[in-house]
Amino acid sequence: MAQQATEDFPTDRSGMFVLPVQECLNRLAAAPIGRIALVQNGEPVILPVNHGVDGTSVVFRTPIGSKFFAADRHQPVAFEVDQADPAAHTGWSVVIRGVAELVDDPVEIARLDQLGIQPWAIRSRTDWVRIRSYEITGRQVAPV
Amino acid sequence: MAQQATEDFPTDRSGMFVLPVQECLNRLAAAPIGRIALVQNGEPVILPVNHGVDGTSVVFRTPIGSKFFAADRHQPVAFEVDQADPAAHTGWSVVIRGVAELVDDPVEIARLDQLGIQPWAIRSRTDWVRIRSYEITGRQVAPV
Repeated sequence: MAQQATEDFPTDRSGMFVLPVQECLNRLAAAPIGRIALVQNGEPVILPVNHGVDGTSVVFRTPIGSKFFAADRHQPVAFEVDQADPAAHTGWSVVIRGVAELVDDPVEIARLDQLGIQPWAIRSRTDWVRIRSYEITGRQVAPV
Repeated sequence: MAQQATEDFPTDRSGMFVLPVQECLNRLAAAPIGRIALVQNGEPVILPVNHGVDGTSVVFRTPIGSKFFAADRHQPVAFEVDQADPAAHTGWSVVIRGVAELVDDPVEIARLDQLGIQPWAIRSRTDWVRIRSYEITGRQVAPV
């Protein structure tokens, strides 16, 4: 989906354009890769994720590991996508904050399996994780 | 700096190439943008950052806000850069874990000011933050 032009967006106190939530969701869906941040033993961890968007949730497949355990424990996580144009010193980012959970309903799993999302690394078994969002924000630096 | 060919790198248990630390630092320096993850009130936060590399540290400028306070309190943070090729289902990421700190030595500040790193958003005042790394890791998915 084409990115909406920013010229009509409001700006925040730093002079950055504030992206509407629907525009955030469009850019989230179009981004080839995102990054999840979670807390492990009190310290932040950040991992790249091949994701999809399902309504206002981020969904992805994961093997057993830190992302799986965060979802199993319904922990708060953050998820980010961005795009930078270093030459023009411009860029945008969309950040989701939400709670991670494992998807265990077979009907929902079957539906998500149709999204065509696969982790890039080869692994024996993966589960679906949903990040149920409670905050969706996006900012864009004004082109110079 | 050109990326080193991955064919001679070892692979981990997921079949991903393990990037040597020097290669991680080269890719970190070449990346146009990175993301910092930190813990705020027990929850993970993720923010895009226009960064530089100074030895084995990540450095960036920040206004007063969550990144500034994390550095002022010497909190643990994570920093990530990546590159994805969705068509080929390949990509790589480099993750730094470390402790954030404010740079207050005038000589060091003058040196960092020469790196040409500016936050993209327009703000009245910024301080230098250094992420002193205690872990540098990088992985690359094998091209298919």
